[in-house]
Amino acid sequence: MSRASLSERAAGRRVALVPTMGALHEGHLKLIKVARELSDTLVVSIFVNPAQFGENEDLSSYPRRLAGDTEKAEAEGADIIFHPSAEDVYPKGSSTWIDVEGVSTGLCGASRPGHFRGVATVVLKLFNIVKPHSAVFGLKDYQQFVVIKKMVRDLNLDVELTGVDTVREADGLAMSSRNVYLSARERKAALSLPAALDAGKLLFIAGEREAVRIAGAAKKVIEKEELAVVDYIELCDSLTLEPVGKLGKTTLLAAAVKVGSTRLIDNVILS
Amino acid sequence: MSRASLSERAAGRRVALVPTMGALHEGHLKLIKVARELSDTLVVSIFVNPAQFGENEDLSSYPRRLAGDTEKAEAEGADIIFHPSAEDVYPKGSSTWIDVEGVSTGLCGASRPGHFRGVATVVLKLFNIVKPHSAVFGLKDYQQFVVIKKMVRDLNLDVELTGVDTVREADGLAMSSRNVYLSARERKAALSLPAALDAGKLLFIAGEREAVRIAGAAKKVIEKEELAVVDYIELCDSLTLEPVGKLGKTTLLAAAVKVGSTRLIDNVILS
Repeated sequence: MSRASLSERAAGRRVALVPTMGALHEGHLKLIKVARELSDTLVVSIFVNPAQFGENEDLSSYPRRLAGDTEKAEAEGADIIFHPSAEDVYPKGSSTWIDVEGVSTGLCGASRPGHFRGVATVVLKLFNIVKPHSAVFGLKDYQQFVVIKKMVRDLNLDVELTGVDTVREADGLAMSSRNVYLSARERKAALSLPAALDAGKLLFIAGEREAVRIAGAAKKVIEKEELAVVDYIELCDSLTLEPVGKLGKTTLLAAAVKVGSTRLIDNVILS
Repeated sequence: MSRASLSERAAGRRVALVPTMGALHEGHLKLIKVARELSDTLVVSIFVNPAQFGENEDLSSYPRRLAGDTEKAEAEGADIIFHPSAEDVYPKGSSTWIDVEGVSTGLCGASRPGHFRGVATVVLKLFNIVKPHSAVFGLKDYQQFVVIKKMVRDLNLDVELTGVDTVREADGLAMSSRNVYLSARERKAALSLPAALDAGKLLFIAGEREAVRIAGAAKKVIEKEELAVVDYIELCDSLTLEPVGKLGKTTLLAAAVKVGSTRLIDNVILS
């Protein structure tokens, strides 16, 4: 992979990377489309990164569909599909980790200790292997994008980052590889998550600026849904991810809910 | 710095980096000589890295001599002297850190918590800014070299590392920027450190293979010296830095002593 990339770079071609964990859906395909426009050589990595899963999380059940994913990514214009094994990425004895402090602490970082350490580490490794000029990430994983932007700045990396808006199903549910876990009843209950964000957004548009009221309104929507349990609903500064009391110009309203055993996240920017 | 390096690389020239904290002595000059041979374009960085000093350590008193250092480095053939400010390297809000677990734990890592986190982070940042093909480090800081080698491997970095043997004063004291702290009496007492390593080595050559006996013999030498206090004397596997009980083929005998308020380190390979 590194040799291919170095030879593309040496020939003056721009390399873009879309890092994925596979099980590609329309959200990923949009990332690939955006990256296609940014690049001469487009690399899509497919790697279910064990380091970003907690002990009791869904690493073993996470959907793996390499053949179909390759086909989909190539249909969108991917030039190289990079799908290393866990042993390729973390050879025996690997013990170097990247901590992006501050922005990794709240939201999903609080619910999933070690998650962003695993994310930052694998993304840095992928950057070092693939050597892209630019990389494209989805903004459904908003905190992930903030963590990676911070890492890129703090570690003086020469990679341009692009965040792409969340792609949604017709009924509003954010596309996620984890949606396949949902039963029919759970799938319906999951709609309380985008509905909760909508409720918060409506209140904001109506002029509400107290975070506690906006979060409260969103929470109510989810609490009406028997199968859904709130993990967090928070309003944060969209750059630092620090919780806000009174909303300023640009605030992130982010939420995570458990629907059955499936954990779903979503967010909206209030501005 | 990055632009200069990218243009050198694009022109097919090999870039080498010697990262230093300045106060250059003969040991550094040897690193520069070795790097000169490896490179077309030789960068010497001079940066007293606050992140690798503990709270009660000598950050504020650490010798700073930029003008003289620049002259010395250029006399040895340095093409570029890179001397960023602390604010350049750690802009306000920097919060990303590299943990190289395992090899950072023992020896100086035990006495100086956070030290190798600071070292690994600054070296990765320097690598990302300077983009060298190769980098040269001194083996007096043996654990540092092992930590950086591990980081380079674990993070898939394309930097070739070279370790250079310790340069010593005529009487055997390892060259160190911290030797200037020593009073005349302390300077004499400091000789107990190389003498202790010699005692350990002699015992090894005589056939001794029990780590506890070799460490004991070394310790005795330092304990005879009133002004010197042992921080650690340890025998470790030279690759993993794990303590050994019975010596194998290649063992690191490493020691740290405090002479007055000055902490000195030194080591020898027994093989």
